[in-house]
Amino acid sequence: MTNMDQVFRKTLHKLLEEKKLNELHEILNTINGSDLAALFEGMDRESLSVYFRLLPKERAAETFIEMEPDAQENLIESFSDQELSEIMNELFADDAADLVEEMPANVVERILSQSDPKLRQDINRLLKYPDHSAGSIMTTEYVDLSPTMTIDVAIAHIRNVGVDQETIYACYVTDHKKLVGIVSFRAILLAPSKLTQIGDIMDTHVIAALTTDDQEDVAHMMSRYNFLALPIVDSEKRMVGIVTFDDAMDVMEEEATEDMEIMGGMSPSEHTYLKSSPLELFKHRIGWLLFLMVSATFTGIIISKFEAALAAQLALVTFIPMLMDTGGNSGSQASVTIIRALSLHEVEPSDLPHILWKEFRTALLAGLSLAAICFAKIMIVDRILLHNPLVTPMVALVVCVTLIFTVMAAKLIGALLPVGAIKLGFDPAVMSSPLLTTIVDALALLIYFTIATAVLL
Amino acid sequence: MTNMDQVFRKTLHKLLEEKKLNELHEILNTINGSDLAALFEGMDRESLSVYFRLLPKERAAETFIEMEPDAQENLIESFSDQELSEIMNELFADDAADLVEEMPANVVERILSQSDPKLRQDINRLLKYPDHSAGSIMTTEYVDLSPTMTIDVAIAHIRNVGVDQETIYACYVTDHKKLVGIVSFRAILLAPSKLTQIGDIMDTHVIAALTTDDQEDVAHMMSRYNFLALPIVDSEKRMVGIVTFDDAMDVMEEEATEDMEIMGGMSPSEHTYLKSSPLELFKHRIGWLLFLMVSATFTGIIISKFEAALAAQLALVTFIPMLMDTGGNSGSQASVTIIRALSLHEVEPSDLPHILWKEFRTALLAGLSLAAICFAKIMIVDRILLHNPLVTPMVALVVCVTLIFTVMAAKLIGALLPVGAIKLGFDPAVMSSPLLTTIVDALALLIYFTIATAVLL
Repeated sequence: MTNMDQVFRKTLHKLLEEKKLNELHEILNTINGSDLAALFEGMDRESLSVYFRLLPKERAAETFIEMEPDAQENLIESFSDQELSEIMNELFADDAADLVEEMPANVVERILSQSDPKLRQDINRLLKYPDHSAGSIMTTEYVDLSPTMTIDVAIAHIRNVGVDQETIYACYVTDHKKLVGIVSFRAILLAPSKLTQIGDIMDTHVIAALTTDDQEDVAHMMSRYNFLALPIVDSEKRMVGIVTFDDAMDVMEEEATEDMEIMGGMSPSEHTYLKSSPLELFKHRIGWLLFLMVSATFTGIIISKFEAALAAQLALVTFIPMLMDTGGNSGSQASVTIIRALSLHEVEPSDLPHILWKEFRTALLAGLSLAAICFAKIMIVDRILLHNPLVTPMVALVVCVTLIFTVMAAKLIGALLPVGAIKLGFDPAVMSSPLLTTIVDALALLIYFTIATAVLL
Repeated sequence: MTNMDQVFRKTLHKLLEEKKLNELHEILNTINGSDLAALFEGMDRESLSVYFRLLPKERAAETFIEMEPDAQENLIESFSDQELSEIMNELFADDAADLVEEMPANVVERILSQSDPKLRQDINRLLKYPDHSAGSIMTTEYVDLSPTMTIDVAIAHIRNVGVDQETIYACYVTDHKKLVGIVSFRAILLAPSKLTQIGDIMDTHVIAALTTDDQEDVAHMMSRYNFLALPIVDSEKRMVGIVTFDDAMDVMEEEATEDMEIMGGMSPSEHTYLKSSPLELFKHRIGWLLFLMVSATFTGIIISKFEAALAAQLALVTFIPMLMDTGGNSGSQASVTIIRALSLHEVEPSDLPHILWKEFRTALLAGLSLAAICFAKIMIVDRILLHNPLVTPMVALVVCVTLIFTVMAAKLIGALLPVGAIKLGFDPAVMSSPLLTTIVDALALLIYFTIATAVLL
């Protein structure tokens, strides 16, 4: 909540106290639903329900759907049956279904009893689609035309049903429920004659998604084709709904956040950061931390096995953090790049040989330059500036050769893991930095001690 | 390029060889521009220009703009002046400006000479806006109404200019070039009477962005308000263009990719992965690798300073990787969460005290549970199963206490750095895993050896 919001809230409260309801009504009416929702955030139930009653029905619904679940529950409890029914029947089916999913059972019962039978049916249908599927984010309100309608009839039809549809700008032509064409409202408006039939101007090369398709793929398709809405069909090509661009934007944002969270070693969160309690944050984070901490037993074992070598050449310990970190960073550069390219469909798992060959050459360049600079750095900084007599040229050489092999191994494994994850049916983002680091650490140490034992002892 | 694409390309080539141009024309006509661009990818110039001549003008422009810059350059060289002029004048101003930015100087000259004077002027204007600004992604083609127009006149106007505008669904009402209202085509269509004036149905509470606003903020606003297009005004509130939802989607995808790349320790790439040469990848990656490798000198110095302690208690080395990694992972969990929340405006830099308090409690929970499990693990696995006599209960205690302090420090620093970056005007994504790891590594070692020296020696 910004400072300006706080000042504004005070102004509203003052108007309310002074019972200047007309003025209040006028002000509230000028604010967008998303902004109102932010403004109402955390307000007590009483003022909230007063403000809500001052909003026109449509704005009230728009604001309601943008609020956080706890505030929604609060509001529903303060609504009369009549008010709840009005709000519900202003909502689009997809928003109503999302609401039902968030609310506790007793509230859901009241919500459904106050919804129109048609809406109730749509909600129930939408709730049956699995999470993250196209079906779960689609809405059932769209403009449905028939191929034999003339432009005149179509415009009259759209004018008639338009108010209740999520968008009127993309119209769908169906024949016995099968999707046979798409026509934009622009094409209808610009049609040469009012007697032209929809069938003559519709585009029959329809791009559609299945209800079972992944929501990320749907959003990606819409971004690729610049679609305002994407029709969703069932397995028999019957049209069942549309996904609109605003929902696709939300999916894109949500999926990018989820990928980043997974790449950062967390399970995806349900709430925004400020709404999450420390206990919730802890639960989302502890899993990977624990798993990776216990996995580090392997690096511990490797070090124990080479304790004799370390005792003889204690200078070797000095470079363990640098080798591990450089390996980890090299690997995560490759894995982040590949994970993102996979999720944007810029590369496919079948490109693996191509990817590995590219990473191999990149890693060779990186490994050789890092090794050269590292050698110079050790000789100048560690030996001359820091006067560390234990760091002999031989030690420097061992470190630098280890660096080359570690960078190469890290980049290849970093590229391989995400592709492997897809082939095994996992989310490739899981194969990112934290897990990779543990694997690369163990490898780096093995390479280091093997070379050191061979050369120095 | 998928397998299906390859089969399809062969079919097209065969039709071309057999000179079945009508059939070819019909097939090409059914394919979306984005798909055609993917299909044409990497084709030789000759076949490419033949296929292009078979496309209707509008589809050709749509396809052209989706292609990669090198293919575009190739095509332009094969176009006659007439063909180039036709394609250019089919493009929207924002796409034309993007094209001009990508092409070498001699090609640009030809492009501009074949564009209409109005388009040339728009291109030149758009190119003046800084990269990543709203001005640089907006288009100048939008429907402009006046408040005194009646519905009838407005519809006639839209029908008249509609073909050339990027969207007709969001209309902007201006008065002496100042933006005074917004009206959706839906509202125009559903207006009660054809004689209603636009001024009476327009929404005067206009949400607009400035040409200088950041493109990421524009995309975020559009996603927040579910806008099909956002009007862009200059510093005097004069309307200069619109950003459409499809460009906002591209920005969201691009910015998420950029954040991930920076968080993975790379500079953002200009090309897709498969289009980037190993040398390019190397250049984007080597900077951070080098910087972080050299920074690791500090961890090296810390270890050297405590060499005596290490020599006396070699078992301490065993736990260095685990402590460093757990610290790094804890820190990057916090930093990834905060970086993403900042970029989605879920938290603001002013929330810092709130953030630190939340991370403190989360870290305490995580640190204590990790330490408890780590103690049990060391006692059971390292001492009993692996028979490591050097790992005494005292060593285990030192490791576990270090773990608590390291996790706490890592989470607090991980949350602090991105917020600090914003306050200093940097991209918070820079403060992610790689840089953080180096800082946390040094801290973890300092804590470890300080405790170890105090307790064990």
